[in-house]
Amino acid sequence: MTLVLHNYFRSSTSFRVRAALALKGLDYDYVAYPLLDNAHRGPEHLALNPQGLVPTLQTPQGPVTQSLAILEWLEETYPDPPLLPADAWGRARVRSLAQMVALDIHPLNNLRVLRHIEAEFGADKGAWFRYWVDETFAPLEARLAGEGETGRFCHGDAISLADLCLVAQVVNNRRFGVDMAPYPVIARIAEAALSVHEVAGAAPERQPDAT
Amino acid sequence: MTLVLHNYFRSSTSFRVRAALALKGLDYDYVAYPLLDNAHRGPEHLALNPQGLVPTLQTPQGPVTQSLAILEWLEETYPDPPLLPADAWGRARVRSLAQMVALDIHPLNNLRVLRHIEAEFGADKGAWFRYWVDETFAPLEARLAGEGETGRFCHGDAISLADLCLVAQVVNNRRFGVDMAPYPVIARIAEAALSVHEVAGAAPERQPDAT
Repeated sequence: MTLVLHNYFRSSTSFRVRAALALKGLDYDYVAYPLLDNAHRGPEHLALNPQGLVPTLQTPQGPVTQSLAILEWLEETYPDPPLLPADAWGRARVRSLAQMVALDIHPLNNLRVLRHIEAEFGADKGAWFRYWVDETFAPLEARLAGEGETGRFCHGDAISLADLCLVAQVVNNRRFGVDMAPYPVIARIAEAALSVHEVAGAAPERQPDAT
Repeated sequence: MTLVLHNYFRSSTSFRVRAALALKGLDYDYVAYPLLDNAHRGPEHLALNPQGLVPTLQTPQGPVTQSLAILEWLEETYPDPPLLPADAWGRARVRSLAQMVALDIHPLNNLRVLRHIEAEFGADKGAWFRYWVDETFAPLEARLAGEGETGRFCHGDAISLADLCLVAQVVNNRRFGVDMAPYPVIARIAEAALSVHEVAGAAPERQPDAT
């Protein structure tokens, strides 16, 4: 069976999924959609994903959209190595940390929103991007620094879905000049994640469509 | 053991969690934070949830934040009745539909963002709200109308996490005058969900802090 990932090198939600695929040792076909050319808004891609967003993972049963749903499907279908802890409390903590990034930063800062606020309000996209990162990175840093479960990674010493969301956001932040000085624990965990071979290989600059 | 839900009657993420608690037959203490008074930004609530957002579910192990993480914790801890299908493909579809609302509508339209765009750009909050609902409801309607798995609810005839996200959004839409005429399948499923006693009881106007 062949998995096909429809994605874009720079997309941080795509980065999360590429890292999970690599950590689980899964081969997949890579299909790129240059978002700046609106390739993801074409009829072929819309047939796969009516939202016209990346990523979509084509599975033997059909296409799965939404990166967090893809990550959970991968976890259920290929449980080894796990990217969620075994206990319900640990899983809740990992999902909560992951969702701080995936719900409270990324949806506000993706391409469609940046385009909209620029067109509608003439807004400064960089200032908007940094504002929403800071709004969530401050409490995320406080949680990671203060909660006893934090280890080398967000939850102990095993990499998890929370780390994949975190590292993809930190890498994305570089394009917008986010000052990471107030977030030493987040920065340390992002470094630890990038030191994992499979995560490093999933980074934007390592993809075939990188420009 | 006592569960405590820290929430706000009008919050659609709180509505999702209240509905899941009721469907699973769980008792809980209800603690209300009037968001308009910034009660959720006080030190007591921030100690519980450093993001200063609702809802937070206090569990015997500690507080769980992020409504989707709470819903997954409830599902794992109290599996009956299930709010996710048994098969990985079905679970992926339900999570993907839930996340269309939970990631691509709600994070753009919650109170903190509406306040920000008004203060920063003098934006029309209603127009912004309706724009992001329409951006996602159009493909959501297309999926629900076109995919064979749709039944009385989003996924067959059993209520799931996707329906809880959908109905909470549809109820929230009323405050902003979203025209539901283009979305007959979404409207039908929201009606079906509201016809379930436990969901109806979780609606904003039925809560002790409703004004």
